[in-house]
Amino acid sequence: MKVLVLGGDGFCGWPTSLHLSDHGHDVTIVDNLSRRKIDVELEVESLTPIRPIHERVRVWKELTGNEIGFVQLDLAEEYDRLEALLLETRPDAIVHFGEQRAAPYSMRNATTKRYTVDNNVRATHNVLVAVMATGLDIALVHLGTMGVYGYGWSGSAPIPEGYLTVKVPTPDGDIDREILHPANPGSVYHMTKTLDQLLFAFYAANDQLRITDLHQGIVWGTQTPQTALDERLINRFDYDGDYGTVLNRFLMQAAIGHPLTVHGTGGQTRAFIHIRDTVRCVEIALENPPERGEKPQVFNQVTEVHRILELAELISKLTGVEVALLPNPRREAVENELNVNRDKFLALGLNPTKLSGGLLEEAREIAMRYKDRADTTKIIARSVWRRGMATSPDLMKS
Amino acid sequence: MKVLVLGGDGFCGWPTSLHLSDHGHDVTIVDNLSRRKIDVELEVESLTPIRPIHERVRVWKELTGNEIGFVQLDLAEEYDRLEALLLETRPDAIVHFGEQRAAPYSMRNATTKRYTVDNNVRATHNVLVAVMATGLDIALVHLGTMGVYGYGWSGSAPIPEGYLTVKVPTPDGDIDREILHPANPGSVYHMTKTLDQLLFAFYAANDQLRITDLHQGIVWGTQTPQTALDERLINRFDYDGDYGTVLNRFLMQAAIGHPLTVHGTGGQTRAFIHIRDTVRCVEIALENPPERGEKPQVFNQVTEVHRILELAELISKLTGVEVALLPNPRREAVENELNVNRDKFLALGLNPTKLSGGLLEEAREIAMRYKDRADTTKIIARSVWRRGMATSPDLMKS
Repeated sequence: MKVLVLGGDGFCGWPTSLHLSDHGHDVTIVDNLSRRKIDVELEVESLTPIRPIHERVRVWKELTGNEIGFVQLDLAEEYDRLEALLLETRPDAIVHFGEQRAAPYSMRNATTKRYTVDNNVRATHNVLVAVMATGLDIALVHLGTMGVYGYGWSGSAPIPEGYLTVKVPTPDGDIDREILHPANPGSVYHMTKTLDQLLFAFYAANDQLRITDLHQGIVWGTQTPQTALDERLINRFDYDGDYGTVLNRFLMQAAIGHPLTVHGTGGQTRAFIHIRDTVRCVEIALENPPERGEKPQVFNQVTEVHRILELAELISKLTGVEVALLPNPRREAVENELNVNRDKFLALGLNPTKLSGGLLEEAREIAMRYKDRADTTKIIARSVWRRGMATSPDLMKS
Repeated sequence: MKVLVLGGDGFCGWPTSLHLSDHGHDVTIVDNLSRRKIDVELEVESLTPIRPIHERVRVWKELTGNEIGFVQLDLAEEYDRLEALLLETRPDAIVHFGEQRAAPYSMRNATTKRYTVDNNVRATHNVLVAVMATGLDIALVHLGTMGVYGYGWSGSAPIPEGYLTVKVPTPDGDIDREILHPANPGSVYHMTKTLDQLLFAFYAANDQLRITDLHQGIVWGTQTPQTALDERLINRFDYDGDYGTVLNRFLMQAAIGHPLTVHGTGGQTRAFIHIRDTVRCVEIALENPPERGEKPQVFNQVTEVHRILELAELISKLTGVEVALLPNPRREAVENELNVNRDKFLALGLNPTKLSGGLLEEAREIAMRYKDRADTTKIIARSVWRRGMATSPDLMKS
């Protein structure tokens, strides 16, 4: 299958590109390198020493003989080049990771809020318009987030995979209606994914585009079999307060002996997935697109559910590093239950990677190996959701 | 009250600005003149000879002594100037009409689809961010559309004012949840208003912005008491296939003896409001903002409901001009029932202007007076919702 991977230089995009290439797909990465540029802006770097994209794809070719194309292109700003690229490459499918993906970054200030909305909405809309305008039958797989649902909205019912049948009262009695799960985003970033959903619904209905939206949980881990082949293929590992995802932050903190930073009580329950399963899920989604005329297909891309404090205590027990409860810079429930439907990927053959001592240890070893690259002044989350909310001072001297 | 009217040079914005100024408010218009520029692009003009905005406000000052400010500013592109303007003027409220508002224009081609999304989403988001960033307690009144609801979704239940209480099934039995009415937009334009709703919900919750969203029906009529004071204050009257609204198009067609162009069977039922009530509704909304911390307040800004074919037959009977049933260039139900809740404006004192022979005649007289300005090659809607859909050839020689 010929696949364009938009955002294929990022944390999920790079291992996905290698996985698809390794499994015989003809992959072209399209990326504006914005994630690397934001690192420059934030004066932080991936803990792992990621190589430039041209080196990455050259090494992959040397090691496997598989060619991955690369096009540097801004999806939001360069529509004409995007449309021309589709006409030139005529892909069977597009995997779309090309959005700003950190909630804290999206909440830093007016500039990052605006950038996140402007970039993400325009990127997604441009992709949809380009597919429509070319008239090519290209299936789209988009990386969404579990954060579109919010937490606790459905009471004791599990969060469904995208759609919910509700009863609407009418003078003639209740009628059943299937609705897109109501949007309850917790940040500007999450909000952009709720906007994407409405774009998808419209273009699937009006132009019969075939769209799959993956509502992914929090990704942890770093390496996949492909990125582990050679150090020059290593995946990025973010530990900073903006881009570090919670479990990876704990593992990195444990590696350098930094207290494990829990926001609030840690009573927040969240859904997780290992990066190895992310890449498999994307492949499964590519192999199972909806038909033309169908509504967008939604998968919950999660494999397990954990309470944040329990994860911190687990890592603490494994490593002896203490847990630190910090002021929560986010507006979110102090604690919540979470029950998520995730039957569709299981039915299509996903064999989930579970949180295990071995995998946690592997990720911590990555962090240990590169711990001298850490800037401990970047660990504490500084972005607050509303003016006047508190954060913690640094817990370690740099 | 000090009020900024964004898009205050447009069809709804101009009479609203005059109405508010006439009622003692301190009005500043902010507009990028995009509506006039799109006329240039489409090679069409308002049937009525509208004057440049600086002349408009100068004449208003001469006639009434009331000063209306004008700032030429692009909401989507000039965020920094917008934020500075808020800090400088410190308005009590903002009325936001500053979006591309024609469904057919939004469906013309890739460029207009992209422009409509990029302009509307960024304009609205920039306004929200600017209010948030300045920390000023500015109430926002936004012009939305009835088109966010779709037609026929609620069965026999009337369309509520924004929110709907539904029953969600759970293992512990059904639970009641209040949701934003599910989005069922019929065009890219309408879709942008459904995106706006999610922006409003987020900023009301996260930043406690005070927001009112007016879900307006199809506006008809041209003049208000203020725009009728002097020909140099006349409001715009669009008759072209992109920007002309259906009832005004019929009135203009009747004035020049052009068949009344009905799309499909005319079985579509839509909600209407006269421009005189638009301006009153906006004032009522300004006087009744929500409190900080409340969810966005939604009003259905409509006064009556009519079937398109019945309107055409009414005008035909009044004028003797025949009705022409044309291929429908839109994807929409052949016919629908429509029942709309509109209690909130009535409770706040709106005395609705009803469709009457007199008012229809007044609008037709406006059209008669300026009929020599009409380009009959612009009457037929040429924008189709999906590739391959048909439109009609011109019905009259130019």
